[in-house]
Amino acid sequence: MHLDALPTPAAVVDLDVLEANVARQKERAASLGVALRPHVKTHKCVEIARMQRDAGARGITVSTLAEARAFADAGFDDITWAFPLIPSRLSEVRELASRVRLGVTVDSKEAVEALASTGDAFHVWLEVDCGDHRAGVDPEGDLGLAVAQELHDSAELRFEGVLTHAGHAYACRFGQGLGEIAEQERATIVAFADRVRDAGVSVERVSVGSTPTMSAVRDLTGVTEMRPGNYVFHDYTQTVIGSADVADCALTVVATVVSHRPGDGISVCDAGGLALSKEQGPSGVAPTMGRVYDDYGAKTLDEEAMLTSLSQEHGVLRGALAVGTRLRILPNHSCMAAACFDRYHVVRGEEIVAEWPIHRAR
Amino acid sequence: MHLDALPTPAAVVDLDVLEANVARQKERAASLGVALRPHVKTHKCVEIARMQRDAGARGITVSTLAEARAFADAGFDDITWAFPLIPSRLSEVRELASRVRLGVTVDSKEAVEALASTGDAFHVWLEVDCGDHRAGVDPEGDLGLAVAQELHDSAELRFEGVLTHAGHAYACRFGQGLGEIAEQERATIVAFADRVRDAGVSVERVSVGSTPTMSAVRDLTGVTEMRPGNYVFHDYTQTVIGSADVADCALTVVATVVSHRPGDGISVCDAGGLALSKEQGPSGVAPTMGRVYDDYGAKTLDEEAMLTSLSQEHGVLRGALAVGTRLRILPNHSCMAAACFDRYHVVRGEEIVAEWPIHRAR
Repeated sequence: MHLDALPTPAAVVDLDVLEANVARQKERAASLGVALRPHVKTHKCVEIARMQRDAGARGITVSTLAEARAFADAGFDDITWAFPLIPSRLSEVRELASRVRLGVTVDSKEAVEALASTGDAFHVWLEVDCGDHRAGVDPEGDLGLAVAQELHDSAELRFEGVLTHAGHAYACRFGQGLGEIAEQERATIVAFADRVRDAGVSVERVSVGSTPTMSAVRDLTGVTEMRPGNYVFHDYTQTVIGSADVADCALTVVATVVSHRPGDGISVCDAGGLALSKEQGPSGVAPTMGRVYDDYGAKTLDEEAMLTSLSQEHGVLRGALAVGTRLRILPNHSCMAAACFDRYHVVRGEEIVAEWPIHRAR
Repeated sequence: MHLDALPTPAAVVDLDVLEANVARQKERAASLGVALRPHVKTHKCVEIARMQRDAGARGITVSTLAEARAFADAGFDDITWAFPLIPSRLSEVRELASRVRLGVTVDSKEAVEALASTGDAFHVWLEVDCGDHRAGVDPEGDLGLAVAQELHDSAELRFEGVLTHAGHAYACRFGQGLGEIAEQERATIVAFADRVRDAGVSVERVSVGSTPTMSAVRDLTGVTEMRPGNYVFHDYTQTVIGSADVADCALTVVATVVSHRPGDGISVCDAGGLALSKEQGPSGVAPTMGRVYDDYGAKTLDEEAMLTSLSQEHGVLRGALAVGTRLRILPNHSCMAAACFDRYHVVRGEEIVAEWPIHRAR
């Protein structure tokens, strides 16, 4: 089927671009001398994870237990749940850990106690904050050392290593400062691992990762694995951060103009907040809820046609576009847009060659 | 099961509040002398639509064909798709129209032509803009009259009536101006219907609706039905508009604090953008991505604990909250938050009494 015949709105993946992105990250990990454990929260898609595994990925990273279950069911047996343990979900963690090598993540004594209370032998990662100031222990504080010591001393728990995520790289614009944040991410986690080792606790694995920092990093000395996720698709935000070009963006939402009043300067399309998510665009550039391709065969952006607002199913565009005009929209955030859909329509050029399920259940 | 044992994040519906909301809207429609055709895009839930039908709703309104299919499969046989026709979905429209009384919506000649090209006898609503400036014909322009005339003249198409939606009521704050917008919504569509009638075209049905305007409207002379949707749940935005109190809000997202650094002023919970959506809060009040109950048994808001930012699975809270603390979060927009989940956990007080599926497939 040609893309022109696809009912809209739909999530479309450009297979050539996806393959190039997967290959490029494989090369980056190899040249930097680290393992690649991609974050599959971006795509939630078994077919794409298999491409990543075929390109040498050792294990995968997930953000929810529902994702972990979907990928475990598909034969992925080495999974890191890179989100602070949710105590009310311990029984699900135990079930998963009984059938795959599941890594869980902690950054508090409460979480260690919850795990230890089961008597099970969980693989446990300690999360460290490298400047994002979201989750993770302070790399210079006492708590991190104490938690590492508890994990080391536990008769049942297995201390897997330390991990961090430089989410603050998303504040970079057009590459400015990206290399410095990548080096900060590396230096912070490596220094923390050394502090833990100095306290007599062995640290075998040191994990970092975000798509922006992994696009800019030049040296990963002391690090053993990277966990980027967004790189398979990229998105409008990545082009503004400076970690990708528009030509590197593999996911678009295909939409149709459904309403336009002759003589008016706006049009309405069928991609609203449940097709693109309501992710706000990056700051520091003209505000938009997604960027519109003027011709969906060409990877160029129409500077005029911007999405000015989204309601649940309506997308309001600046620009006079006839009813029936088909659009290809680059989402602000591909992870969030992908989670709006049940399946990807996969294209070579403008020909649909596959449909892949998205495991969006929670 | 007690709410305390529920794995988080979860979408929780308070059945007492839901029942009161359904009953109140039934009374409002009856006292205003109009039929009630609730918009089920808010809940996407057959069990709730049945409550609305039992409370006298005549038919339902949907925003997508996937919703229409889910409700048709559950026995709802009178459905209005209140979104401008998407030409690439005509075959789905035909399939649905073959098994239920499906109303479709147009605001352009292109859409009428697409429908007429099939030769099928569709029931067609003409959408009119009453000030929202999203979809709908200009009520004072020529296009609306021309489209109504085409529908009237068509041998196959059946002109169902005129509809409008006062989306601009969402800009009201604390009730200010809400009554005026409700009257504008009514007066605009009634005047347009009269213009069409003056042109010799019969208009039997006149449909309005939004939860804010239907909460404030005093008179619906000339209107035959209302289509509010959000009223079943309400949300934080409705409390700011002035169309509901916190005690009228039936949907909350139950979450758990998963990360907090002792001595720090922020905490992280497990309700991120895929649990609350990234709907921005209403303007004109302190910005938040959702409001937090300090005690989820009590319908009071903690003025301190606000959600300052959401990433995909993390919610960052202002406030020092211990790991393991359970929260009940009032979403900014209940329709968008509900669409993040597969099911509602339904409570009487704090006891879970049912699980209802959410038909979120697209």
